[in-house]
Amino acid sequence: MAASSATLSEIGPIAEIIDRALAEDLGSGDVTSRVSVPGGVMSRARLIAKEGLVLAGVEVVREVFRRVDPGITVDLLARDGEHMPTGAIIARIHGEARALLAAERTALNLLQRMTGVATLTRAFVDAAGGRCRITDTRKTMPGLRALDRYAVRCGGGHNHRNDLGAGVLIKENHIRAAGGISAAIGAARRHAPHTLRIECEVTSHAELREALEAGADVIMLDNMDDPAIAEAVAITRKRALLEVSGGVSLPRVEALSRLGIDLISVGKLTHSAAAADISLLFEPPGGWA
Amino acid sequence: MAASSATLSEIGPIAEIIDRALAEDLGSGDVTSRVSVPGGVMSRARLIAKEGLVLAGVEVVREVFRRVDPGITVDLLARDGEHMPTGAIIARIHGEARALLAAERTALNLLQRMTGVATLTRAFVDAAGGRCRITDTRKTMPGLRALDRYAVRCGGGHNHRNDLGAGVLIKENHIRAAGGISAAIGAARRHAPHTLRIECEVTSHAELREALEAGADVIMLDNMDDPAIAEAVAITRKRALLEVSGGVSLPRVEALSRLGIDLISVGKLTHSAAAADISLLFEPPGGWA
Amino acid sequence: MAASSATLSEIGPIAEIIDRALAEDLGSGDVTSRVSVPGGVMSRARLIAKEGLVLAGVEVVREVFRRVDPGITVDLLARDGEHMPTGAIIARIHGEARALLAAERTALNLLQRMTGVATLTRAFVDAAGGRCRITDTRKTMPGLRALDRYAVRCGGGHNHRNDLGAGVLIKENHIRAAGGISAAIGAARRHAPHTLRIECEVTSHAELREALEAGADVIMLDNMDDPAIAEAVAITRKRALLEVSGGVSLPRVEALSRLGIDLISVGKLTHSAAAADISLLFEPPGGWA
Amino acid sequence: MAASSATLSEIGPIAEIIDRALAEDLGSGDVTSRVSVPGGVMSRARLIAKEGLVLAGVEVVREVFRRVDPGITVDLLARDGEHMPTGAIIARIHGEARALLAAERTALNLLQRMTGVATLTRAFVDAAGGRCRITDTRKTMPGLRALDRYAVRCGGGHNHRNDLGAGVLIKENHIRAAGGISAAIGAARRHAPHTLRIECEVTSHAELREALEAGADVIMLDNMDDPAIAEAVAITRKRALLEVSGGVSLPRVEALSRLGIDLISVGKLTHSAAAADISLLFEPPGGWA
Amino acid sequence: MAASSATLSEIGPIAEIIDRALAEDLGSGDVTSRVSVPGGVMSRARLIAKEGLVLAGVEVVREVFRRVDPGITVDLLARDGEHMPTGAIIARIHGEARALLAAERTALNLLQRMTGVATLTRAFVDAAGGRCRITDTRKTMPGLRALDRYAVRCGGGHNHRNDLGAGVLIKENHIRAAGGISAAIGAARRHAPHTLRIECEVTSHAELREALEAGADVIMLDNMDDPAIAEAVAITRKRALLEVSGGVSLPRVEALSRLGIDLISVGKLTHSAAAADISLLFEPPGGWA
Amino acid sequence: MAASSATLSEIGPIAEIIDRALAEDLGSGDVTSRVSVPGGVMSRARLIAKEGLVLAGVEVVREVFRRVDPGITVDLLARDGEHMPTGAIIARIHGEARALLAAERTALNLLQRMTGVATLTRAFVDAAGGRCRITDTRKTMPGLRALDRYAVRCGGGHNHRNDLGAGVLIKENHIRAAGGISAAIGAARRHAPHTLRIECEVTSHAELREALEAGADVIMLDNMDDPAIAEAVAITRKRALLEVSGGVSLPRVEALSRLGIDLISVGKLTHSAAAADISLLFEPPGGWA
Repeated sequence: MAASSATLSEIGPIAEIIDRALAEDLGSGDVTSRVSVPGGVMSRARLIAKEGLVLAGVEVVREVFRRVDPGITVDLLARDGEHMPTGAIIARIHGEARALLAAERTALNLLQRMTGVATLTRAFVDAAGGRCRITDTRKTMPGLRALDRYAVRCGGGHNHRNDLGAGVLIKENHIRAAGGISAAIGAARRHAPHTLRIECEVTSHAELREALEAGADVIMLDNMDDPAIAEAVAITRKRALLEVSGGVSLPRVEALSRLGIDLISVGKLTHSAAAADISLLFEPPGGWA
Repeated sequence: MAASSATLSEIGPIAEIIDRALAEDLGSGDVTSRVSVPGGVMSRARLIAKEGLVLAGVEVVREVFRRVDPGITVDLLARDGEHMPTGAIIARIHGEARALLAAERTALNLLQRMTGVATLTRAFVDAAGGRCRITDTRKTMPGLRALDRYAVRCGGGHNHRNDLGAGVLIKENHIRAAGGISAAIGAARRHAPHTLRIECEVTSHAELREALEAGADVIMLDNMDDPAIAEAVAITRKRALLEVSGGVSLPRVEALSRLGIDLISVGKLTHSAAAADISLLFEPPGGWA
Repeated sequence: MAASSATLSEIGPIAEIIDRALAEDLGSGDVTSRVSVPGGVMSRARLIAKEGLVLAGVEVVREVFRRVDPGITVDLLARDGEHMPTGAIIARIHGEARALLAAERTALNLLQRMTGVATLTRAFVDAAGGRCRITDTRKTMPGLRALDRYAVRCGGGHNHRNDLGAGVLIKENHIRAAGGISAAIGAARRHAPHTLRIECEVTSHAELREALEAGADVIMLDNMDDPAIAEAVAITRKRALLEVSGGVSLPRVEALSRLGIDLISVGKLTHSAAAADISLLFEPPGGWA
Repeated sequence: MAASSATLSEIGPIAEIIDRALAEDLGSGDVTSRVSVPGGVMSRARLIAKEGLVLAGVEVVREVFRRVDPGITVDLLARDGEHMPTGAIIARIHGEARALLAAERTALNLLQRMTGVATLTRAFVDAAGGRCRITDTRKTMPGLRALDRYAVRCGGGHNHRNDLGAGVLIKENHIRAAGGISAAIGAARRHAPHTLRIECEVTSHAELREALEAGADVIMLDNMDDPAIAEAVAITRKRALLEVSGGVSLPRVEALSRLGIDLISVGKLTHSAAAADISLLFEPPGGWA
Repeated sequence: MAASSATLSEIGPIAEIIDRALAEDLGSGDVTSRVSVPGGVMSRARLIAKEGLVLAGVEVVREVFRRVDPGITVDLLARDGEHMPTGAIIARIHGEARALLAAERTALNLLQRMTGVATLTRAFVDAAGGRCRITDTRKTMPGLRALDRYAVRCGGGHNHRNDLGAGVLIKENHIRAAGGISAAIGAARRHAPHTLRIECEVTSHAELREALEAGADVIMLDNMDDPAIAEAVAITRKRALLEVSGGVSLPRVEALSRLGIDLISVGKLTHSAAAADISLLFEPPGGWA
Repeated sequence: MAASSATLSEIGPIAEIIDRALAEDLGSGDVTSRVSVPGGVMSRARLIAKEGLVLAGVEVVREVFRRVDPGITVDLLARDGEHMPTGAIIARIHGEARALLAAERTALNLLQRMTGVATLTRAFVDAAGGRCRITDTRKTMPGLRALDRYAVRCGGGHNHRNDLGAGVLIKENHIRAAGGISAAIGAARRHAPHTLRIECEVTSHAELREALEAGADVIMLDNMDDPAIAEAVAITRKRALLEVSGGVSLPRVEALSRLGIDLISVGKLTHSAAAADISLLFEPPGGWA
């Protein structure tokens, strides 16, 4: 492990993710650099935002370069969660050219992914205007969940349960297998760890009433339109938290957030975020303009 | 390993990717199923396309379920590369409910990712109309490169080099570190394995001429507009393959493909593809409609 | 992975735990069997309870033998959670002698550990008489948490949070670092995933009142005597769940369970359980008596 | 690896054990600290013996904290093998609060386990009074054998063979599969590496004589009472080392040690040791008393 | 693990070695087969000895093919330890062509290595004529020790200690660090596990006498000529086993073996064995001749 | 990872290879040093060439010692690729004796292997006199390919493709499965990544003509004698690179290199290189002579 405490407490262990990404991209070693760039050449480079974005992952970038070569210095000019305009310099990097080139694509792939997630999340959070939480889902990129969830927080979002062991969420398929909402919630209350709230997905007001009666702590309203959600809020009367879920698009968020619900969970924050546009540029022959 | 030969020869080893994704999503085990669904309950489920898409990853889905529980049967109704209309059934799945629920999200996350990449690739390939290749880049999701590259092929695209060890591509940053195009290409010709072509990125016609003279086998034209590309084609006179790169959008592809170039490489195929919309549904109480 | 669904849904992935244990015990291979037992000799063996115990881990045993040699058959005569008297046969095992001998100690070490935990848990659960839950803690054997927690359930206990990511439990040290109970609970309510209850440790009735006011969902009463606990129950008036913690010995459980609390968490279930006495015996020369 | 030479030469590689334990306990990250303790808060803490004990594992503790955050300082006030009275301070620790809290339970779980083993071993060693060796067995906690064996040495005990590849011990089950003691020992003498002594378990004086005749270097007397052991000593006449094994309780050790045997192996040192009582306490608001 | 018992008990776990070798050789997948051989084509192939050799590793070959594709059948025509003349068929293999091609080089690299070691060992063993043991050393190929040691046994050799934890061998450097032979042996006798013999390297007759007096069980005579060895035999008078070591060439073995020593350890068996010449051939268009 | 940039860019990641080798050799820890050498003793040692050799692997040696104990200092007196005469000192090493002894064999096994490969390669390269390249093959030691390939470069050789994903080489078996040379090359040209040259093995002049016509970029002439090769050069007329392969012995290289071919690939560089003779010696009692 041996990551810095800041990184560990904010993201979790990242060494294995980075080593795997580096191994995948290095293959049997950077043949281009080996055959075309002399050993020992030192270079300066800049990490530059090519569009407006909300940063996430600068400590990951620092760790990528450190793992390739502890001799590389990464001078960060911005912090995660910060908005950067087009053209802004995110970091200045200095080290042996071969090492920079070996680390470049892995660093960018991770930073562009995380920043893309944070930037999209910020748009949803801004639309919700603090009236309800925007949360992620388990629809994250396989192998990168810790980074995705951290990026959501950088964008101002909240996290849903991390994994199947860290929350009870009884969905449609569970209900079908368990033989109904009351049966499922009842069993969960008897057996679930007391540290976890019990959440249940419903698709109608009848199901909502059944779930409330059975003692759900949180209700997920699945694919309801705004009037149906408003009525669900009225039925619930604060007896449970209400989460709206199901293909919520950005333009719909503001209206949704005014209906009295507690949370909107948005799969696309992590399953469909576009990579942010960021480049690593070596100093040109005549120096930086 | 012990994957089937078909999967191995088409995608490469996937067992480790799947186990990692499962471990990440299972955490300390599926507490919801354990506390709400009785052990031993058997369920039928369907994997359904919720929008038009080009499939990629059905063998991965089969392997996810097999690794969670060898007793699950997955009956595939379609093959990778096939176009599926909205509502089409991709697979029928049968097994113990708890096992299906434990595997569901991992299977969907992988399938939706791969199918999203294949579907986007197909759009680019159709626009190119067979006049030039559409290729991926190394801008893949960290840890999922093998799946991303396979999905590109399912969409009709070609692969660029897999990693830094599997191709020589001298880019702007290498040129700056090496002290110029001729120096970089010359050194590469002396040292590179004879099994690899030597590709060089250029940003002007002068650089193009220098690269051709130095013996590049492939030239990457970086961020040139269409007239500049047409002139590059004329200058090159088939002495090297020509690859166009740099933020190529879908609407631009058809015109580009008519300029006489050999390849267009498209980062967004893998760094910004949206997940395809696919669901896993358990049989409803009264049976399938 | 490829464990059976039953094992996976009850315990979680165990393949890695077993392979690690086998590798640790096999070292460079079972030299005694190789040099003293001819290859190909087949043997019958029995797994026998040498004292009264509550079984946990029979599927783990089956998997140990299967991973050493898929040709070994394990015929289980009892199920996890079952009480076995001294002398009872737990399983009949048949296979190549060298393979049985290579797997024996690993299978026993795991089964004796898990059964020891289940047997001790059952004693606490019986003493609590259904009046409150007996739960485990995070004081499990490093690397074996999934097995320890499952064994607790086999003994009739409940699980506390699995790990630091699966529950919010604000303890004395957090309170000191956060600057007080109200500050810590308040921040937790703003930032914690909505799927998790917020639990707080208190050491006095004043702290209890502060925690209740700040909105704790669960209160851990640390090292209080019975009268203090009774008063805490009265103060709380069901506004939060109450958990008693701190070196609770078996003789004290019955009285404690009558005070109106919800849970007793017991570290010794997993940090100090003695191994159950179980043997694997090969059939004697003249056959079983 | 990169552990210090002292740790490596005394315990063996521990990095993997620690990382696994940390990963198991951290899960998706310490949510309690993240949501309740501000980043950057620095804390002082003490590791305190809550009962009399024989220390084992202080370097492991240091490494746990170092791997979570290299910025944490651990000032050790005692060494492994030392006896600590109730209330003694084992170490002073300083670092970022979030990092200390993330590492606390893993550090304690390992230290309490190892110290528990060392403390129990010391009791047996003291009872044997130097008249014979007390050794461990392969009945260690799966995944923790290196730590268990080191802890036994901290308590003054000796190690038996580490694993199946590091010693020849022909037990009852081997004898049944091999067709007798003479056959088993004879084959072992022909095939075993010359670096290993050949040990054989016997259950009667007849078997003892057969084993001696066949050339056993060490004899394990299984479950014999004291008179039978005394006679075995007389029969053996120093032609082989004698090891007593089988549920030896502490009160029996002194008498046993006076019978002329060489070793007593004790499974409970590692399969049933209770955790030592040790706490980590943050500095209270008004400073240490 | 899940290797067959035969393999496990003879070689130890091999799954990880094979998977690592396959991953190393497959890289991002077998591009040649994918682009030139149609999927689904089935082929027959033969594994053929291209020179006289002593086989080792046929079960490893079977496992390589099984891990790439469980559908491949491997029909073994010979067993490990068997001598094969030039042109002999070792195995018949049938399966999908792409899978055979993906596994071919890994299977051959392992088989040729192991068979090379076995063949060289047999030559030394034949020269020793049963008068003394030929043993390997720890000078094995890093990562392949289990295979190397097994191959030595296939060639009729014996194994020395497997690793630093499985034997006590006090060499020149230990003696210098310990301050002399007597000090080193004395300490070893007090602290070493009783399951291990104590071996000591000596370079002169004076050192031999010191080692015998200090109680060494085995003496390694380092780089002595034949008369010196003969005298060492006379001095020792069977009080310890005698091992000759140090660059022993094949022509010298017969004379050495007649001097009365017990063992000759030969580093070149594993550090300098040439690969055996073995080919995998697909059935020619017109069928096998 | 965290290897130095120099090592990473020249060899690739080596940490895992070293840790695996150390784990394999350390087993449960260096018992000899623990029981015979007091802790804390510091020693000086020298790494000495015992025969003339071409060095490869000195940075690997440094990393082995660093991973066992960061306190060890390794003062390198020579660089990879350098020729060392008998008796030359390669490095001076200083550190705790137990740590040096724990690392010694692993460091030597790796250095002797790599130096053996480099030394043999240099002989072939010298014979080729710069008239054609000497290349390695995929016949490397399983698990050590990166080290083997680097050692070949240290000896002045070139690398062939690293793995099945990094080059297209259509061999006899592919041709049989694909149904002929033209079919195989044609398919490869349509599907292979444009970054890879297409190489095809031929066994006759007719096959050579077919391969040239089908568009092969490189031709491997398999097991032809010199006159046949000379004719192949004439037929090819520089339309493709020519590689000679198949059991080429050192005495044949000079003549071969004068025939006009481009490359000779030599399997024995890596499958049959003898280990170089190198020793690690501790300072003798009276100091170095």
